[in-house]
Amino acid sequence: MSEKQLLSILEKLTLDQKIAQLQQLAGPFFEGASSQGQITGPMAAMGITDEVLTHTGSVLGVTGADEVIAIQNAHLRKNPHGIPLLFMADIVHGYKTIFPVPLAIGCSWDMELARKSAEIAAKEAAVSGVHVTFAPMVDLVRDPRWGRVMESTGEDPYLNSEFARAFVRGFQGEDLSADSDRVAACVKHFAAYGAAEGGRDYNTVDMSERQLREFYLPAYKAALDEGCEMVMTAFNTVDGIPASGNTRLMRDLLRTEWGFDGVLISDWGAVKELIAHGTAADEAEAGRRALAAGVDIEMMTTCYIGHLRAMVEQGVIEEALIDEAVLRILRLKQKLGLFESPLRGADPEREREIVLSGAHREAARELARKSCVLLKNEGGVLPLRPESRIALIGPFAKSGDILGPWSWMGSAEEAVPLYQGLAAYTDPARITVAEGCDVESGTPEQITQALEAARSADVIVLALGEHSGMSGEACSRADIRLPAPQLELVAALKALGKPMTAVLFNGRPLDLHGIIDEADAVLEAWFPGTEGGAAIADLLYGAENPSGRLTMSFPYSVGQVPVYYNYFNTGRPQDAPDAQVHYVSKYLDIPNEPLLPFGFGLSYTSFAYEEAALEGNTMTAGQPLTVSVRVTNTGAMPGEEVVQLYVRDFAGEVVRPVKELKAYKKIFLEPGESVKVTFTLSEEQLRYYHADLSHTSDAGEFAAFVGPNSRDTAELRFRLTK
Amino acid sequence: MSEKQLLSILEKLTLDQKIAQLQQLAGPFFEGASSQGQITGPMAAMGITDEVLTHTGSVLGVTGADEVIAIQNAHLRKNPHGIPLLFMADIVHGYKTIFPVPLAIGCSWDMELARKSAEIAAKEAAVSGVHVTFAPMVDLVRDPRWGRVMESTGEDPYLNSEFARAFVRGFQGEDLSADSDRVAACVKHFAAYGAAEGGRDYNTVDMSERQLREFYLPAYKAALDEGCEMVMTAFNTVDGIPASGNTRLMRDLLRTEWGFDGVLISDWGAVKELIAHGTAADEAEAGRRALAAGVDIEMMTTCYIGHLRAMVEQGVIEEALIDEAVLRILRLKQKLGLFESPLRGADPEREREIVLSGAHREAARELARKSCVLLKNEGGVLPLRPESRIALIGPFAKSGDILGPWSWMGSAEEAVPLYQGLAAYTDPARITVAEGCDVESGTPEQITQALEAARSADVIVLALGEHSGMSGEACSRADIRLPAPQLELVAALKALGKPMTAVLFNGRPLDLHGIIDEADAVLEAWFPGTEGGAAIADLLYGAENPSGRLTMSFPYSVGQVPVYYNYFNTGRPQDAPDAQVHYVSKYLDIPNEPLLPFGFGLSYTSFAYEEAALEGNTMTAGQPLTVSVRVTNTGAMPGEEVVQLYVRDFAGEVVRPVKELKAYKKIFLEPGESVKVTFTLSEEQLRYYHADLSHTSDAGEFAAFVGPNSRDTAELRFRLTK
Repeated sequence: MSEKQLLSILEKLTLDQKIAQLQQLAGPFFEGASSQGQITGPMAAMGITDEVLTHTGSVLGVTGADEVIAIQNAHLRKNPHGIPLLFMADIVHGYKTIFPVPLAIGCSWDMELARKSAEIAAKEAAVSGVHVTFAPMVDLVRDPRWGRVMESTGEDPYLNSEFARAFVRGFQGEDLSADSDRVAACVKHFAAYGAAEGGRDYNTVDMSERQLREFYLPAYKAALDEGCEMVMTAFNTVDGIPASGNTRLMRDLLRTEWGFDGVLISDWGAVKELIAHGTAADEAEAGRRALAAGVDIEMMTTCYIGHLRAMVEQGVIEEALIDEAVLRILRLKQKLGLFESPLRGADPEREREIVLSGAHREAARELARKSCVLLKNEGGVLPLRPESRIALIGPFAKSGDILGPWSWMGSAEEAVPLYQGLAAYTDPARITVAEGCDVESGTPEQITQALEAARSADVIVLALGEHSGMSGEACSRADIRLPAPQLELVAALKALGKPMTAVLFNGRPLDLHGIIDEADAVLEAWFPGTEGGAAIADLLYGAENPSGRLTMSFPYSVGQVPVYYNYFNTGRPQDAPDAQVHYVSKYLDIPNEPLLPFGFGLSYTSFAYEEAALEGNTMTAGQPLTVSVRVTNTGAMPGEEVVQLYVRDFAGEVVRPVKELKAYKKIFLEPGESVKVTFTLSEEQLRYYHADLSHTSDAGEFAAFVGPNSRDTAELRFRLTK
Repeated sequence: MSEKQLLSILEKLTLDQKIAQLQQLAGPFFEGASSQGQITGPMAAMGITDEVLTHTGSVLGVTGADEVIAIQNAHLRKNPHGIPLLFMADIVHGYKTIFPVPLAIGCSWDMELARKSAEIAAKEAAVSGVHVTFAPMVDLVRDPRWGRVMESTGEDPYLNSEFARAFVRGFQGEDLSADSDRVAACVKHFAAYGAAEGGRDYNTVDMSERQLREFYLPAYKAALDEGCEMVMTAFNTVDGIPASGNTRLMRDLLRTEWGFDGVLISDWGAVKELIAHGTAADEAEAGRRALAAGVDIEMMTTCYIGHLRAMVEQGVIEEALIDEAVLRILRLKQKLGLFESPLRGADPEREREIVLSGAHREAARELARKSCVLLKNEGGVLPLRPESRIALIGPFAKSGDILGPWSWMGSAEEAVPLYQGLAAYTDPARITVAEGCDVESGTPEQITQALEAARSADVIVLALGEHSGMSGEACSRADIRLPAPQLELVAALKALGKPMTAVLFNGRPLDLHGIIDEADAVLEAWFPGTEGGAAIADLLYGAENPSGRLTMSFPYSVGQVPVYYNYFNTGRPQDAPDAQVHYVSKYLDIPNEPLLPFGFGLSYTSFAYEEAALEGNTMTAGQPLTVSVRVTNTGAMPGEEVVQLYVRDFAGEVVRPVKELKAYKKIFLEPGESVKVTFTLSEEQLRYYHADLSHTSDAGEFAAFVGPNSRDTAELRFRLTK
């Protein structure tokens, strides 16, 4: 359908019909839905009439080809203009084949696997009738108390931007209209939702505009540069004004400065929440402010359908604003080919064939392997030997609760628990299982059973962590240790003196005291998804070598939060050559450094970094520098390594991070193999937001750092001249 | 001396001599100082020549009339222009008569006593030769990890502003030149030093300009409105640029917008620290940036004397900038009457008479009584009866370490320990003392002795806390509980089942778990100063009724930080009428509310709040509203109550705090006495910084709240119409 045809449809719509296009409602509201009528009461209370439903623009949270087809067909029978519904849903890290949570995917540093995970999620979702996914979530995160850190790829703006692009490519492919196996992506949550104060979900966000632009905005921008079709607002305030009613953020920055002309959708209920925020007296004002800010679709509240019409009639708002929003929605429907094929990829038969297919599970297993991070491995405890007798102990030993939050279409029953994974590598008779405790509680009897199980084993494998209800949305924790019963279990088993490996299932960086010193080996498995147990077993038995690297710092304790690698130096850094003993920026009782730094991760082999060098030591605008380092696999096992390049600007107009990731290369080396890894570093990569918010670089002294993580790097000095 | 004469002096100075006026050095550099020559090595290394010393403008940290007189006289013998030295020192909460730490003074809500404390500090300091004190510190604080919260009066911008004014009035009096018992005040640390990230001292500060203006700037402005002569820069960055080199903050805002034409001094070493911050490549650039930003005096580093001259000669900076800075310094010397009386109030004989006089100690005792906050009192444990046998247990039982940080001229030997205070109220034979543990360590024997002491007593009085090295500058703590040995002591004593009162000596709000439930009564005594033990005894024995009210929230745990009463509501508040169960802004594991809220404090009597009322319910710009409430002393003891008035704006253009303190009245009521307390609330008090940073109010619905603290209030709705 041409733009002209879209305009002609728009012209035919009454004002009420246009406003209804801006409404998004959940499935049960719609005729044809299997759950239809379940929310009849709320419907009336919300002021949703049949007329509104007939002209509603989009549906939320409905999947399944049969269901979508039924609703779409029923809708089109009634809608006089033949405008199909848009079906949107949260397909975050897989549809039914669940991939690791995004924070885990971040640890893979693998853009191709990340892209592929989104491609598979899109394929399963599209065949099940979904047109748009509310993903990727690219909020930069620094506070592990916040439950939604598991939805982000971490604390680095550059890496987050790379992942944002990869996910958008995976979801959308090359051509949405031609490829009905793809879905439109919706980058969220615009903006800076990850900086919720105190790590408490939905809480106030406050930062300078420079901080916003430098750290928080790049990943959203990267998603849009990649062609992401939609943007979702954040629940939080930005500079004192809730994002969903923030004209400066949405209209001036997103639409005008960045030129985004796609659909902007509120998060669930966020338009009406302007009232709770205290920036709107009532629903009418909430609707007016959201529309003025550029929010096209109102999700699940009804400030638009309840009040826009009256405000247009009173001359409070211009109908052109509504037309603009409707047109954006129609354009997206057109891009998805819905006018021609309103059922798009929805296909019950193909759905049964594709969803949770062996190939998809294999991809999930591969990404899970790449996402696990080996945090400790002393005394050669790992890999396990097939002949060892194992005591598998902990609440996650046989648990399928390893999919993580935002896997609502996934099924724990389809998941491979750790026990099942291990049993594929060794005679199950060699594995004794005991829960030891529940996730948040425990009994002395459970510990006794665990000790009993451990006594007859050669090695202990602990399966510990947070259940999926302990992270994700509205799941902030003030205490970021594992629950006390699990720590007590670890202490009790430690007393046996047997080799002990801890596998952790969790959604946030934890304070690992009580585990990291007690266990001989620790594997951070996050929520690894459907194939989690199989992937972990691949690693524990050494069929594959762990290669994940942390993308969010693990704090020493919650009292250290926020802690992140790309901090500013302060005027009194603790480690400076002329630093005083007392009057430096430090804590009295803990180190400044996190327990485990950004970029960190071990391998079963070892890598030597040598010959770090710069070709020349002066960079100019037209003349980049080459940074190189020789990396050698000095161990006995093939393995992957993530070679990381950071920079530091020693004298900017504005303070600069002590290290900023600028590039990385993931390499695979056979034992003894050696490779010279080179990076090209250019002036453009040294630019930042100055006092006047211009994005330029400063001449002067810089350092390039190369190494296996953000801490253990070789420093190379150079100058930028202008 | 007239302005004309000052200009004539300025004209006679060579460029080097002018630059030397901008230098501030510590006492040992100067001829005549008893410690002279002690830092000869550093002097040479710093490039400080005799010529520089001859023309240096000010001295830091020297006190004592004899010492000041000797240095000043020696200086004037050499200085060809007869320019006297300015003597500056940190006189923060008393000179030798130490008052409670400022956070404790905040809890008095008593501006007259606060003013008087500054007046006495000024008098003792002035007679000892000090001309300028580096106080008041008025940084707003929300993070108890930060060691310097003890230097602030708390988390409220209005109350902090009131205290800022009171301290400035106390230090400076009506007329500095006429009253040599006064000293010039220097408000610090400009700006927002209290928002150090992670509560780690000197750390990065980042916030929106609106946040800065609304919460952090008012108290500095209030000090200047009160006539404060000087301003000190902060160590931190503001919007990415260190305060000491921040032209926008210092030149544009402080000097141009606010019209401050007094002396701006760097904090210790802060000019050179621009290098560590990474916003200056070397000392020359650091000096250039600081001078450009408007810093007149460089404290303890030598970027100015080392480099300004060359930069003037090279045309990099204008000599006019230096002239301007020198003139401000000369004007301050003139205001203090130093050209006519270079020794000013310094008087060894009067010093011996005034300093630590009985009257001063009595004033310190009075303020300490008003600063203590009764946090709990169950079962009528307090007040103590004179006939009770007391076990006084804890590391602070007989300790003089109760002066707190920034009391360098005070002496622990002069302090009244708690034991001494109690012994004045009861026969010392009735008091058994045991340390129980040290502040940060303990032995089983100490606990045994404590249990022994407790067994023969009727009541236990615990004296617990942080030693003075655990708070203050560079003393950030990631764990804000009392040290474990003290908590173990509490648990051991609790088992005895005897009435137990805990007196706490500390510099920050603590996580009180392990004390608040175990003790029957808890008195927060902070660091109460020289007369601490006497004042606490006055309260414990009921000679006076506790009346202090917290001005900084006590967090539930460190994982809740920052927590403060004047937060924004968010879009999903936990306590809203239509709030969901799960998807609200909360922690899974702790409440949102602090353990103890702002404004909270108990009394030995009880106060009833009744008849809260508004006269009318519509406010206009010209027509304020009257808020009233009847408060009755319903207990058996006379007592003071702080009646507090808060407001809330339900629909601003920008989010507004759920409560904002607007006024308070401290009243004294005899048992049975009742009084109607009235407040006038005007449109001006409802103004705030809008999206365009205009300071206006919004028509609409508001609430006024009256009550005894920020939590337990009666709500009264009204409308502002325009």
